[in-house]
Amino acid sequence: MLRTTNCGALRLSEVGQKVTLSGWVQKTRNKGFMLWVDLRDRYGITQIIFDEERSPRRVFKEAQQLGREYVIQIEGEVIERESKNPNMKTGGIEILANRLTLLNPSSTPPFTIEDDTDGGEELRMQYRYLDLRRTPVQDSLIFRHRVALAVRNYLSGEGFIEIETPYLIKSTPEGARDFVVPSRMHKGEFYALPQSPQTFKQLLMVGGMDKYFQIVKCFRDEDLRSDRQPEFTQIDCELAFVEQEDILNQFEGLTQHLIQSLLGEDVGVFPRMTYDEAIRRYGNDKPDIRFGMEFTELNSMAQGKGFGVFDSQELVVGIAVPEAAEYTRKQIDALIDWVKRPQIGALGLVWVKCNADGSFKSSVDKFFSTEDLKAWASETSAQAGDLILVMAGEAQSTRRQLSALRMELAERLGLRDPKVFAPLWITDFPLLEWDEESQRFHAMHHPFTAPKPEEADLLATDPKKVKANAYDLVLNGNEIGGGSIRIHNAELQQKMFDLLGFSPEEAQAQFGFLMDAFQYGAPPHGGIAFGLDRLVAILAGKETIRDYIAFPKNNSGRDLMIDAPTAIDPLQLDELGLNIQPNSSE
Amino acid sequence: MLRTTNCGALRLSEVGQKVTLSGWVQKTRNKGFMLWVDLRDRYGITQIIFDEERSPRRVFKEAQQLGREYVIQIEGEVIERESKNPNMKTGGIEILANRLTLLNPSSTPPFTIEDDTDGGEELRMQYRYLDLRRTPVQDSLIFRHRVALAVRNYLSGEGFIEIETPYLIKSTPEGARDFVVPSRMHKGEFYALPQSPQTFKQLLMVGGMDKYFQIVKCFRDEDLRSDRQPEFTQIDCELAFVEQEDILNQFEGLTQHLIQSLLGEDVGVFPRMTYDEAIRRYGNDKPDIRFGMEFTELNSMAQGKGFGVFDSQELVVGIAVPEAAEYTRKQIDALIDWVKRPQIGALGLVWVKCNADGSFKSSVDKFFSTEDLKAWASETSAQAGDLILVMAGEAQSTRRQLSALRMELAERLGLRDPKVFAPLWITDFPLLEWDEESQRFHAMHHPFTAPKPEEADLLATDPKKVKANAYDLVLNGNEIGGGSIRIHNAELQQKMFDLLGFSPEEAQAQFGFLMDAFQYGAPPHGGIAFGLDRLVAILAGKETIRDYIAFPKNNSGRDLMIDAPTAIDPLQLDELGLNIQPNSSE
Repeated sequence: MLRTTNCGALRLSEVGQKVTLSGWVQKTRNKGFMLWVDLRDRYGITQIIFDEERSPRRVFKEAQQLGREYVIQIEGEVIERESKNPNMKTGGIEILANRLTLLNPSSTPPFTIEDDTDGGEELRMQYRYLDLRRTPVQDSLIFRHRVALAVRNYLSGEGFIEIETPYLIKSTPEGARDFVVPSRMHKGEFYALPQSPQTFKQLLMVGGMDKYFQIVKCFRDEDLRSDRQPEFTQIDCELAFVEQEDILNQFEGLTQHLIQSLLGEDVGVFPRMTYDEAIRRYGNDKPDIRFGMEFTELNSMAQGKGFGVFDSQELVVGIAVPEAAEYTRKQIDALIDWVKRPQIGALGLVWVKCNADGSFKSSVDKFFSTEDLKAWASETSAQAGDLILVMAGEAQSTRRQLSALRMELAERLGLRDPKVFAPLWITDFPLLEWDEESQRFHAMHHPFTAPKPEEADLLATDPKKVKANAYDLVLNGNEIGGGSIRIHNAELQQKMFDLLGFSPEEAQAQFGFLMDAFQYGAPPHGGIAFGLDRLVAILAGKETIRDYIAFPKNNSGRDLMIDAPTAIDPLQLDELGLNIQPNSSE
Repeated sequence: MLRTTNCGALRLSEVGQKVTLSGWVQKTRNKGFMLWVDLRDRYGITQIIFDEERSPRRVFKEAQQLGREYVIQIEGEVIERESKNPNMKTGGIEILANRLTLLNPSSTPPFTIEDDTDGGEELRMQYRYLDLRRTPVQDSLIFRHRVALAVRNYLSGEGFIEIETPYLIKSTPEGARDFVVPSRMHKGEFYALPQSPQTFKQLLMVGGMDKYFQIVKCFRDEDLRSDRQPEFTQIDCELAFVEQEDILNQFEGLTQHLIQSLLGEDVGVFPRMTYDEAIRRYGNDKPDIRFGMEFTELNSMAQGKGFGVFDSQELVVGIAVPEAAEYTRKQIDALIDWVKRPQIGALGLVWVKCNADGSFKSSVDKFFSTEDLKAWASETSAQAGDLILVMAGEAQSTRRQLSALRMELAERLGLRDPKVFAPLWITDFPLLEWDEESQRFHAMHHPFTAPKPEEADLLATDPKKVKANAYDLVLNGNEIGGGSIRIHNAELQQKMFDLLGFSPEEAQAQFGFLMDAFQYGAPPHGGIAFGLDRLVAILAGKETIRDYIAFPKNNSGRDLMIDAPTAIDPLQLDELGLNIQPNSSE
């Protein structure tokens, strides 16, 4: 070992000990007759002192040459510091160096290795190995490790078995786009990388494994939105002989355990809300319930009063923004501009100030009396001092717009406290959603989700109405997990594929193995999957996942550090029996 | 929950309780007025009794219809069995059924779901979900889970952080063949699936993560030998600021812990042997040391006595086979045939019987005196009653042949006891090996392995002689892990790429990111990787890995259950900018 202890361990109690430390030069401070080095490793920083009088002459001389990020080994004695630093764990001591070994010099790094670095995101991704030296990034990865280990130990304690499912599987057109892997042994054929181990975990239930989990990489070849990665990690779980209630309880237990054991918070029993209720109350199936501003539907009080903007609309809906009645005209105009941006796409915003003195001032005073506005205030539970904001239009898009505004206001008002955890189960998702573009049903969750048994008959008559025992776990406005009770009956699965527009041949070619398996005694089963990247980020109080991934890819799916993807050798292509289409190379 | 308890839990102490069980019908026994069902789940088997008098009429009638592998739920009372079965955990009780729900019927499975099934391997792979219902397969996967969890908790306790490295990386021509993944966003370019996270774990060390591990899937597109899989799982580890000794101690500790905690065996301190010594004593760099039959080189005593078969050869080498002097002529001829098979390729075998009465009988009595043979016996430590077998030829191939014979004999003599664990470190591997075919050096371990510092100068003058701080952990004749101290210096890494025949441009294109990283203060580091599939199998006393993989592929890399790989949609190919070469489709 090139050290006897690490850079975070030494305290006053070790004064007098001879130690060997290795690490990186964080910085040096040279006073001519004395030179201090902050030596850094994963565990902390220890101050080293090189002294013209007390350190060997050669050591003192060599120390003058040290630059930032040099890797060195020093031997010396732990001594008490004259001026202690109470902000450092090791701030009571320093090491008086009597040997110095340069293990590796360093060029000047392209950005500073500090908690707040001067490096831009692209540069830091290109030199990710340097970015990783920064304490916040290391802490993020260590926290991720702790979360994953806590998940594993908890689920194992509950009788779950972690089982590895294959990565080289079969491409299926349903869902997102697959990454495919050409087979050399079977030229012209392809494996696919799993979007999730969905069918395999169901087969494990058919195979009697009873309780399965896996922390596993999944792959989706999508055009990347800002905070998506082509490869991501799931906590994937499945149980046999269960009903929805069992799954909610089991994974509520897991989530409570994580928050309790990692963050010391007791979040209590998780509230539950149906999908329909969430849409009505928050315009959104993953509401952030750390704060109020619930939706109030105002059709009955706001329509028929001569205000044309409201009258013809499917939905008039408002929220009461706490303590915002004093917003200036300029501030309100800015909000109106904000909702009119193409990303939101609203036509406008009606506002009502519920002044502290009990009076009202609104953008629609011409059409509505004080009594009307008072009724709105009462309905939206607006207090004196609040600002009511109202939107109108087609129900679905209006809800989406107002939901975006609600989140934006919460952000501005500081209501999204990352230290507060507000979990919420959303249940009773619709089984299917109608896709206008393709003029067919899509599975809201996936094609293996079972309809609620009592609604299965509706499949034949009014599929749109059928609800599923499907559920999401929402934490602070983010979906961190989702799952369902699955179909375990071959005919019902076949019927579902029909509804989704699969021909019997297509269904057989893609999922024949699953329907075959259902012929041999498949147990009732269900499960859930959590997005580990996001779960970790949210537990750490953050919302971007990239810092919680050791080697993330950028928005075009490129690894800037290793420079992948790349062209490959023509011989390799020949072995795979593939040609690159002319003009397709970029 | 569709059960109040599982099929392995109930004992006499529960007699009188009302319970609900769910599971699979293992078998039924019908006596007309009474019918027994063995109900099975992952946890065990519980006997259910349906009784004409005591069960409801309809329940009794429905029970008559139950077939093998039907999934049922029963409610009933725990009663004491009249004739107890001491071989079953639940053998003291049975359940008197008063409700029966058929959860799912089953077609007759294509093979029996018993510990010893009648299904052939291909059939069981095709219906892997049924094979998984067999207790030995379930036990194998549960054992694998326990090993993996024990590894994680042990390493975490030692300060290692599990960090996920990417699966979509860059193709490199060194090593085995990569599986590649075409990029849609960057047409004509490809990712590769990792053969191991080697460069990433080294970059994590450059990034200061200090102690890394990961249980991770790796991929190799090789022509599959019988017990290889295109995707396999590694316990991958790397440490900074260490020397070889630290790594051996750390992972000796891990292995001791696994054997102790999972199997209750204390295997003590692991012996160590250099590569050269292992080759000399066992003809093999992964010797099984559960038994003797060590090699004895007999050149000095066996050459120059007029026996031409020996005289001209590079090596004459023998082993003493314990208590085999009584082998018949037929048995010995069979051994000679065995070594002459093309898989072994030996020209023959000289034998010497050390008879119990002290006399000798050999196939070379014409050339060697009793005194000569006595000297051989003394040199090979053969006892009266042993059989000496001697081979001669070119050293490398002769050692390989005799090593194969030694293992075969140990197998026949029952010396390879799966309950005995004999770990062994092999150290001081050569850095390079000369490849006659390509007329260049290959890295024996991989191109990132450092030469022993004291031998680095030899690289320029006699590269073949250079040894590395590279090591394998061998368990019962299987390499279960291997690793090395790495190069952490950009120039030395460049020199190594030169030696391996990379042009500077190739080295830069493939591994520029690593050599760049080494410019910014790379710490000394090293690591090891274990093959989890094999480790688990050997700890369980088995040598084939397939049973320890939930969904294995066959020898042509095909998943027989889901039928992958397959052709993909031409649209998908277009999106990827690829064409399949004419005539390449099979």
